[in-house]
Amino acid sequence: MLSIEWTASQGWFAPRITPYQNLSLDPATSVFHYAFCCFEGMKAYKTSEGQVRLFRPDKNIARLNRSSARIALPKFSIDAFIELLSKFVAMEERFIPAARGYSLYLRPNMIGTQRTLGVGPPGSALLYLIASPVGPYYPTGFRAISLEATEYAVRAWPGGVGDLKLGANYAPCIVPQLQAAKRGFHQNLWLFGEEKFVTEVGTMNFFAAIRDKETGKKTLMTPPLDGTILEGIIRDSVLDLARERLKPEGWEVEERKFTMDELASAAEDGRLIEAFGTGTAAVVSPVRKISWRGRLLECGLKEGQEAGDVTRRMKDWIEDIQYGVEEHPWSWKI
Amino acid sequence: MLSIEWTASQGWFAPRITPYQNLSLDPATSVFHYAFCCFEGMKAYKTSEGQVRLFRPDKNIARLNRSSARIALPKFSIDAFIELLSKFVAMEERFIPAARGYSLYLRPNMIGTQRTLGVGPPGSALLYLIASPVGPYYPTGFRAISLEATEYAVRAWPGGVGDLKLGANYAPCIVPQLQAAKRGFHQNLWLFGEEKFVTEVGTMNFFAAIRDKETGKKTLMTPPLDGTILEGIIRDSVLDLARERLKPEGWEVEERKFTMDELASAAEDGRLIEAFGTGTAAVVSPVRKISWRGRLLECGLKEGQEAGDVTRRMKDWIEDIQYGVEEHPWSWKI
Repeated sequence: MLSIEWTASQGWFAPRITPYQNLSLDPATSVFHYAFCCFEGMKAYKTSEGQVRLFRPDKNIARLNRSSARIALPKFSIDAFIELLSKFVAMEERFIPAARGYSLYLRPNMIGTQRTLGVGPPGSALLYLIASPVGPYYPTGFRAISLEATEYAVRAWPGGVGDLKLGANYAPCIVPQLQAAKRGFHQNLWLFGEEKFVTEVGTMNFFAAIRDKETGKKTLMTPPLDGTILEGIIRDSVLDLARERLKPEGWEVEERKFTMDELASAAEDGRLIEAFGTGTAAVVSPVRKISWRGRLLECGLKEGQEAGDVTRRMKDWIEDIQYGVEEHPWSWKI
Repeated sequence: MLSIEWTASQGWFAPRITPYQNLSLDPATSVFHYAFCCFEGMKAYKTSEGQVRLFRPDKNIARLNRSSARIALPKFSIDAFIELLSKFVAMEERFIPAARGYSLYLRPNMIGTQRTLGVGPPGSALLYLIASPVGPYYPTGFRAISLEATEYAVRAWPGGVGDLKLGANYAPCIVPQLQAAKRGFHQNLWLFGEEKFVTEVGTMNFFAAIRDKETGKKTLMTPPLDGTILEGIIRDSVLDLARERLKPEGWEVEERKFTMDELASAAEDGRLIEAFGTGTAAVVSPVRKISWRGRLLECGLKEGQEAGDVTRRMKDWIEDIQYGVEEHPWSWKI
């Protein structure tokens, strides 16, 4: 693991790479009481030539800095962190599986380590990085998930912190997830406001491909970054690739608000072509159906079909870049 | 410190009272990443006869259970925890200062201790209790605070977790607090919605005493428990005492929504008699002024005056009960 300590008076200390080991912390440490914690999820990939790559790491570290600043934790130089990350990944190269779909999951995490119960800015912090080899999210090919559109619990709010990777956004989502699971659904589809705007799915961003009622025009859409949506890096990549590669095929690509009613109407008219979640873990995660006020909306998949065409192509395009099949500036060589 | 471990498969383990010591936790422990933490703040008081008392401890432990259940952490028997708490406090009796205003602060805290990065319910948890002697919040008598009514950040929302003592509610409030402090204010006055309903002050509940424009009738009011307000135990106690002791004097006592506009209008008409925050730390905390959209609202205190009449009496009434000057069922003998 990589560890870097910080104090308000002395700033960042020298980074240390040590064997994986427990953290020994005073029981009054602020992370235990007031949720001074934020993190990132990243992966190191190995190309078929054995070269090690990172995917848009600058985006992760910039977001980590936005997260930490929002809870009065320090920022770290993006360039310096990527350099440390690269050294760490190079040292751990033997733990990066050499097959498509496999990677070394990297978890940078920052916690407030001040040992007092007063509610205030932590005077000390620890930024650390741990890692673990991971296999493909869908080892036997795509498996479409089903969602429960959730009205009784609200993940994020304007003026809140739902756009950041703070620990605070995660613990409150578990009970709704367990309740959805009890009713046979994999994830919550988080909504917002009286209009029931669609926001996110579980811990992923949400995309829907719909056909226009009048013009028949196809649109790939995702909710805009209005402060309630996590600024997902796969989300951003999907949008860029869609603009570059789907628009020439006649697709519209839109970041805009849409409601459950709009989605339900598209599903019931057979105009919901496909829907998927995006995130670092699965890249894209196809959605089969959404439970909404007693109805079960079909999301365009035929029986036996586990992913739509856009979902499949996005996964291939992004993985081609991650594994160096396609050379692209998003893929950083270590 | 008192420690009780829990696992999903085996339930609660035997409680242990040990010397105060660091917690040694795997860096992948869920509290560090997803804010699986909730706590309580309580105090043990010593009467002038040297008897040790707790103040409504059943309320704290019931709330701890509501908090923990909301983030998929286990509940603990209220009676059993109060018994353990009593044993602990009896053992630590020498650390309870024997003077009014002084007490032993007690911090029960529960954390998720599962050592995996998957976002799910923790399979293990640790409930622990630490303590520290504390002096009077206002050692030289009351000091009225000033508030900044905060529009750009929102503490809590319907369908969220703002009614509970989750760590997740605290870290996101620090930056707004620092910004208010930079402008010379002690705390944020948290608002909600387009109507700018008053909700809480810093980490306290909020009370305002106003005089009706038409009838001249005096009302002590606080926002209702609508899911965005912490269910404060001092809040509840103030309401009960106000109904019992202020109503016979002609006061109205109301739990109701009110807006910044209503408060501002009362302040500008000279009808805002006084305002205060309530919480375990200070019992009551008088408010001198509130910054609101470029105006500075005076909250009824004359120059040199640090607390209003209701504020003073509430503090005396509650402390009389806490320190056993007045025998009352809220004060539990250890």
